[in-house]
Amino acid sequence: MSHPEPHAALQALSTQLGPELLLTDDFTRGLYASDDTPRRCMPEGVLFPKTHEQVRDIVAIARQYRVPLVARGAGSGNVGGALPLPGSLVLSFECMNRILDFDPVNRTITVQAGVITQDIDQLARSQGLFYPPDPGSAPYCRIGGNLAMNAAGPKAVKYGVTRDYVLALRAITGTGAEIRTGSRTSKGVVGYDLTRLLVGSEGTLALITEATLRLLPAPNARATLRVCFDSNVHACEAVARVMAGHITPSALEFMDHHAIEAIRATGAASDLPPETRALLMVEADGEASDLPRQIRALEQSLQGPGLLELLEARDPDAITALWTARKSLSGAIKRIAPLKINEDVVVPVTRLAELLAEIERLTRHYELPIVTFGHAGNGNLHVNLMVHPEDKGEMARAREALLQLFKAVLQLGGTLSGEHGIGTEKRDYLPLELDPATLAVMQGIKRQFDPDGILNPGKALPMRS
Amino acid sequence: MSHPEPHAALQALSTQLGPELLLTDDFTRGLYASDDTPRRCMPEGVLFPKTHEQVRDIVAIARQYRVPLVARGAGSGNVGGALPLPGSLVLSFECMNRILDFDPVNRTITVQAGVITQDIDQLARSQGLFYPPDPGSAPYCRIGGNLAMNAAGPKAVKYGVTRDYVLALRAITGTGAEIRTGSRTSKGVVGYDLTRLLVGSEGTLALITEATLRLLPAPNARATLRVCFDSNVHACEAVARVMAGHITPSALEFMDHHAIEAIRATGAASDLPPETRALLMVEADGEASDLPRQIRALEQSLQGPGLLELLEARDPDAITALWTARKSLSGAIKRIAPLKINEDVVVPVTRLAELLAEIERLTRHYELPIVTFGHAGNGNLHVNLMVHPEDKGEMARAREALLQLFKAVLQLGGTLSGEHGIGTEKRDYLPLELDPATLAVMQGIKRQFDPDGILNPGKALPMRS
Repeated sequence: MSHPEPHAALQALSTQLGPELLLTDDFTRGLYASDDTPRRCMPEGVLFPKTHEQVRDIVAIARQYRVPLVARGAGSGNVGGALPLPGSLVLSFECMNRILDFDPVNRTITVQAGVITQDIDQLARSQGLFYPPDPGSAPYCRIGGNLAMNAAGPKAVKYGVTRDYVLALRAITGTGAEIRTGSRTSKGVVGYDLTRLLVGSEGTLALITEATLRLLPAPNARATLRVCFDSNVHACEAVARVMAGHITPSALEFMDHHAIEAIRATGAASDLPPETRALLMVEADGEASDLPRQIRALEQSLQGPGLLELLEARDPDAITALWTARKSLSGAIKRIAPLKINEDVVVPVTRLAELLAEIERLTRHYELPIVTFGHAGNGNLHVNLMVHPEDKGEMARAREALLQLFKAVLQLGGTLSGEHGIGTEKRDYLPLELDPATLAVMQGIKRQFDPDGILNPGKALPMRS
Repeated sequence: MSHPEPHAALQALSTQLGPELLLTDDFTRGLYASDDTPRRCMPEGVLFPKTHEQVRDIVAIARQYRVPLVARGAGSGNVGGALPLPGSLVLSFECMNRILDFDPVNRTITVQAGVITQDIDQLARSQGLFYPPDPGSAPYCRIGGNLAMNAAGPKAVKYGVTRDYVLALRAITGTGAEIRTGSRTSKGVVGYDLTRLLVGSEGTLALITEATLRLLPAPNARATLRVCFDSNVHACEAVARVMAGHITPSALEFMDHHAIEAIRATGAASDLPPETRALLMVEADGEASDLPRQIRALEQSLQGPGLLELLEARDPDAITALWTARKSLSGAIKRIAPLKINEDVVVPVTRLAELLAEIERLTRHYELPIVTFGHAGNGNLHVNLMVHPEDKGEMARAREALLQLFKAVLQLGGTLSGEHGIGTEKRDYLPLELDPATLAVMQGIKRQFDPDGILNPGKALPMRS
């Protein structure tokens, strides 16, 4: 394979696109050198295409000069998916932010990849619809990044993840082929499901330029329960009862006592019963007249050993107040240590208590603060190892703890990532979960879509051995 | 590539599996020579493996002797997906019918590929859960066939299709590689989405041996509306109003006047208003206390020009009576002509009336009875061209009408198949819908999974040119 020639590529790109869509100054390159991981790598330049055709031209030139392309939405991912590589170009989708079609009757919306996720939801809501996937970054992340990572959020427990709302894609593969996948209809089985093959592939197979998304009728009311328990075990038993029950909540969030203490240290959540060691936030949505029935059923499931308090809120202000504790968490835990290693593991809901017991063991054994919270209804916990990056001993212990955590998750029938993806951060752990034959099939697909390895190389899959 | 050696393969298979899992008598081969298309082709033999490992051994031997393997569930598909090829072996999954794990709290079930779809639903219902995909063949079809074709049914309008309920698969690729895809958890983004790549791939990429499926809490009540309209246009307007509304029905089925006349000819549906030219069956499900609210909203959406009658039923007997007309349809239309060419096209719901107008034009222009009904809420219509296979002129007109139908569907923003799949029957029409670059990517995937072309060759994709 010939040598990468980033400078020749930059010259060709500047000629092809015009200089205003390509920035190479230090300030801009610095802005695009990192994502929400602590790593940093300066790209050779940053591209801002506005159209599908410009993305196609960029791929052709990148391929000609063997220059890696790192697709980027808002750079809010936390596994290094959008992290530049040495000698790479960042392809930012920020300027591809047009709504191409909005069809409320057929409940579809077609957008360029750089549209902000929350803008899609807001436009849908203007017509009584909504876009269910709700990552925490929705106010600023881009739909292309959500598609690349198969993003999710609290609502996934009832409504599913990004993958479940994608009808059709337009994309450019690593060979420069322009493909269209799926159809705009709500059903379709023509050819292989390339749509879902691209969703979650982290920009390693093709660059998604446009997407047609499915929308749902918006629930017009919601109610929230804040439920305090005396232990992880009792909270997890309640989660399992809820998920075995008739009413699926629209959110079922968990916080462990480390998370509660972090919030208390900020002065928030002063109204929690003092003996609270685990907290659930449970939400139901639907039509206002139907909420009491749902809430009654959820309350019934939540009743059980160790329940300390159950508060209910139906009006928006009261709901906001109940969520305050949960929302203050991200800020609160930064006080514990400067860096959080933010994991995103999943186990079957019946195994949550065992996972939490193992996390407690790890926090003691490795003398590391670990703060755990997340989407308990999906068995999807965010496990945050709080560390000081300059403390080499602590970092070594954290790496060892992570490996133990991942092994425990797999032992419990779980998976290494529920919604954050693999990127660079979990890449080397994949062989713990995927057997060599399955990995080889994935690597074969990568080679087929991107034979020159120019699309986000080294992400999502272990490097080829 | 070396020559296929079916007889050597049969000998090796008999030695490997024992003679009782391999039948080559004429009677058995005749039983497995066809599916629900009018075509027939005798296989060289029929294999009845009981375990994943036996399927692995079969693939290894088939590959060694270059013998095509045609995977088969119940053979109830209607596009030739399970149709044997000359010199092929049929691999029947009928004896792989064990439930491997049922976990009601985590809402999952793990089954061998030969389990009958309805048995999965019934087991789920014994614990207050259900398996939503409901193809008409559910009482006898096998889940492996459903996975291969991404089967659906009336409930898809609210609950989605087979693809939406698959968490994890175990499979053997055409190279004999044993792979595991997905995870048993309700969320997971580790590696490429091989699960959904295999779903709908019609046995051409890998043989699915085991599947973990997601279940939902079962609704405990339903109500049905039978709604008569004076024209297709008015019925389609009502469909669009319902689908733009707040309440998604659990079924929204349509019948055109040819279908209604076919039923009337059998003596059923004598209670329909005589001026009925289009019929909708609308269903809602949920908790009993919540149904009146849903039905009120649906009735409101259904009100409009051309509504002749709206009947409601909530108790099971009354619902059965209302569905009688719809259920008698398959039998009824066989009286029109011996063969139905059963198409399965989809358009956006707002374009249904235009599609029906084009179908009326085709029936007049080509002098062919065409009976249309189906899942209007998804824009998915079953268009049945009724023909006499021995009448060559009629068959030629039918082929021409089909081509016109497909072109109209695509012009209206639709897709060639909503739930039946491609098989042999629609294979050659695929280039109407998929551009060459997208087809080339699919053919590349086929080559990667099955380099020797032994898995159901000639199905799902056009032959390589």
